[in-house]
Amino acid sequence: MLTPNLSYANLKESYLFHHIAEKTGAYLESHPGAHLYRMGIGDVSLPLAPAVIEALHRAVDDQAVKESFHGYMPECGAPFLREAVAGYYAKRGVRLSPDEVFVSSGASDELGDILDLFDRKNRALIMEPAYPAYVDANIMAGREILHLSSGPENQFLPLPEDGLEADLVYLCSPNNPTGAAYGRDQLSRWVAWANARGALILFDAAYEAFIAEDLPHSIFEIPGARTCAIEICSLSKTAGFTGTRLGYTVIPKELERGGLSLNAMWVRNRTTKTNGISYILQRGGAAVFTEEGQRQVRENIRVYRENARCLMRALDQAGIRYWGGRNAPYIWMRCPEGMGSWDFFDLLLREIQVVGTPGAGFGACGEDFFRFSTFGDPADTREAAARMLRLLKK
Amino acid sequence: MLTPNLSYANLKESYLFHHIAEKTGAYLESHPGAHLYRMGIGDVSLPLAPAVIEALHRAVDDQAVKESFHGYMPECGAPFLREAVAGYYAKRGVRLSPDEVFVSSGASDELGDILDLFDRKNRALIMEPAYPAYVDANIMAGREILHLSSGPENQFLPLPEDGLEADLVYLCSPNNPTGAAYGRDQLSRWVAWANARGALILFDAAYEAFIAEDLPHSIFEIPGARTCAIEICSLSKTAGFTGTRLGYTVIPKELERGGLSLNAMWVRNRTTKTNGISYILQRGGAAVFTEEGQRQVRENIRVYRENARCLMRALDQAGIRYWGGRNAPYIWMRCPEGMGSWDFFDLLLREIQVVGTPGAGFGACGEDFFRFSTFGDPADTREAAARMLRLLKK
Repeated sequence: MLTPNLSYANLKESYLFHHIAEKTGAYLESHPGAHLYRMGIGDVSLPLAPAVIEALHRAVDDQAVKESFHGYMPECGAPFLREAVAGYYAKRGVRLSPDEVFVSSGASDELGDILDLFDRKNRALIMEPAYPAYVDANIMAGREILHLSSGPENQFLPLPEDGLEADLVYLCSPNNPTGAAYGRDQLSRWVAWANARGALILFDAAYEAFIAEDLPHSIFEIPGARTCAIEICSLSKTAGFTGTRLGYTVIPKELERGGLSLNAMWVRNRTTKTNGISYILQRGGAAVFTEEGQRQVRENIRVYRENARCLMRALDQAGIRYWGGRNAPYIWMRCPEGMGSWDFFDLLLREIQVVGTPGAGFGACGEDFFRFSTFGDPADTREAAARMLRLLKK
Repeated sequence: MLTPNLSYANLKESYLFHHIAEKTGAYLESHPGAHLYRMGIGDVSLPLAPAVIEALHRAVDDQAVKESFHGYMPECGAPFLREAVAGYYAKRGVRLSPDEVFVSSGASDELGDILDLFDRKNRALIMEPAYPAYVDANIMAGREILHLSSGPENQFLPLPEDGLEADLVYLCSPNNPTGAAYGRDQLSRWVAWANARGALILFDAAYEAFIAEDLPHSIFEIPGARTCAIEICSLSKTAGFTGTRLGYTVIPKELERGGLSLNAMWVRNRTTKTNGISYILQRGGAAVFTEEGQRQVRENIRVYRENARCLMRALDQAGIRYWGGRNAPYIWMRCPEGMGSWDFFDLLLREIQVVGTPGAGFGACGEDFFRFSTFGDPADTREAAARMLRLLKK
C-alpha cells in the first residue's frame, strides 16, 4: 500500500491570492464595468526587451532546420549562458567559474527543487514576513521551521542574535514583501553566523536588479560567503521573464557539508532529474546579458522605479509610514491606525478600486501592513497614487 | 550544522554516457577525421515541425507587445494546452478532465519531481533493464528499491508474480532500452495487482507515439487504472522537443492514498514549487495537437520508423536476435555469443565506427545486450546497417 507524503496534510490552505481573487470578483460582479487598479500580484506588465525577442526568434529558427537544430542541452545549463551569468557577476567584482552557475526554470522552481540536497532533519529559519512558498516547501519536507519575526524595530532586517540556532536560513534581499534590503555589514553578520556553525544561507536575489543605492546585489560580495551560501536568482523581475521562465543558481565549489560538495550534488541532481532547460529560452536569457539587452532591461526597470516613486510621494504626502520602494519593486506600508490588513484591503477596493496585498498573507507579523507591487501599468499607478492620497489624507 | 542529504553518497557513479564519450573521443583522436555512425543516445535528429515553429514565433511576438504579453502562467498548465492534451486522449477513447492533465518541462523532470508526493518509506519496484534515473532518483530519496530482472524468457515484459510486494511500480511501455511494449492483457494484470494492494503505478509513456500495432498507448486505456496510476509523457520523442522541453502528466481525480487526493497534492506542489511553464513553449506544444501538427510529427516518426526497419532487416539477415523496433524507437539486440556489451561496443567502434549503448548501462541483466537508437540521420543509419551486416555475418 502506497503511503503518500503525509506532511502535505500539515499545509495550511493557501488563501491569500485565492481570497483576493474572490473579493475582487465579487466587487466586479456588483459594479459591472468598473476599472480596478491592480497593484497586488508581483507580476510584470512590460513586454520582453527587443534584444530578447530577437534572440528568441533566432533560436526558434535554429530549431526549424536540421543543421542548426538543438536536441538535449547540457543539464546544468548551456555554456554560453553560464558564461554570460558569470560575466554579469564579474562586473560587480564577484568571480565565479561558469560551472558554479546552474541554469534553472526560475527562482520559485529552484527554491523548491534545491531542498532535495538537505537532510529533512535540518531546522529551517524563515524570517517573516516572508514569501509563503519558503514555509510551505519546508512543511512538505517535514522539516522543523523556526519563524523569526521582523518589524519596524529592525527595519524588517533582522540580524542573528545570541542563541539563534538553525541549519538552513532563508535570506531574501531586497525583500519580498517588505522591500527592505540588507547592507554589507548586516550580511557580513549573517555570513559569520553561518560559517561559525556550518549553517547554510539560501540567498534569494530575485530582486537584485532593483537595487539603486550602494548595497550588495549578491551574497558573494561578502567575504566568507563561498563557504556558507547558495544564491538563487531569476530573470523574472530583472527582464520580465515571469511568463517566459528562466533563472540561475550559484553554488560555489568550496561549499561542502558532511564531506559532500553541494556543487557536485547539484550536478548529480540535475543530470538525474532533468534534461536541461529549453535551448530557445537560454538563447533569450543570454540576450539579457548583452550590452544592448542590459540597456533595454534597465529602461523597463526605470519605468517600475518611477511607479515606486509615484506611490512613495503619495504616501509621504499622506503621512503614512512605509518601507521598501527605493531598492525594491515592493512598497510595504503600515495600515491606518487600528486597521487590520484585510480591512484595509476592503477599504481600498470599495472606496478607490485599488487592489494590493494584505500583509497578513506573509505571516502573522504582517497583519498591520500592506504590500503594493510597483510592476503595474504607469498610468494606473499614477491614478491609484492620486486616489490613495485623497483617501488617506482625510 | 547543516546535514546534507546523505543518500547522495549511496549513488553509484554514472559511468555510462561519460564512458561512451571517453571511448569515442579516444577513437577520434587516434583516427582524425573519421566519421562515426552515432546510434547511442536517444536524442532526435529532425528539426521541429513547421506548425510548431510557426506557433513558437507567434508566441514570441505576443511577448514583444504589452497588449498580448503573458506574465505568470497558471502553475498547472495553460488551459489551452491542458484541453489539447485531453482532446488527444479522447481520440483514443480515454476521457480526461483538463484538470487531470498537468503541463511539465518534460518526462525526466517530472519523474524526479513527482516523488515528492510519496513517503520515503515506500518500496519502489524497478524492472530492469531500466532507464538509470528511476533507480538514482529513488536512491536520492533513500527509498528501498526492489529490482526485478527481465529477459528473453518473458520478452522483457515481466508480469506480477505471487509474492511480489511493492508500493510504487515503474512501468515504461514502449520500453527504454528494450523497445518491448505491453499488451492490454498484460497491463490489466499490473492494474489488478496494484489495485489489490493499493500500490501505485508510475507509467512512463514517453514513447507512446511510436506504437504501430494494436497496443495500449496509455495506462488509462485499461479499466481500473484511474485508481492506481499516474502517467508521465513528453513531447521530446513525439515531436522532437528534447532540446525544447515540454511534457504532461495525468493524475486522475479518483486517485487517493491515505485519505489524500494525489491530484490535489500535485496542484499544491506545483502552486508552491513552480510558477508554471513558459507561455512560449506551451504555445509550441499546443501546435503539436492540431491536425496539421499531428500530420507533421507523424511524418518525422515515419522517418525514424524507416530507420528501425533498416536496422531490423540487417539484424534479420545476420541472424541476430533482437527486441523492440516495431513499436519503439529502440532496438535491443543480443550481443554475439560470449561477448559482453562493452566488448561489443569496442568491436563496433573499432571495426565499423558505429556507436551504440552497452546494455550493462541499464542494469546487470543488460550485460549480454546492446541498444540502438533509431533517432539518427537516415543516411547514417543505412550505412551503419550495411556495415553491421557485413561485420556480423562473418
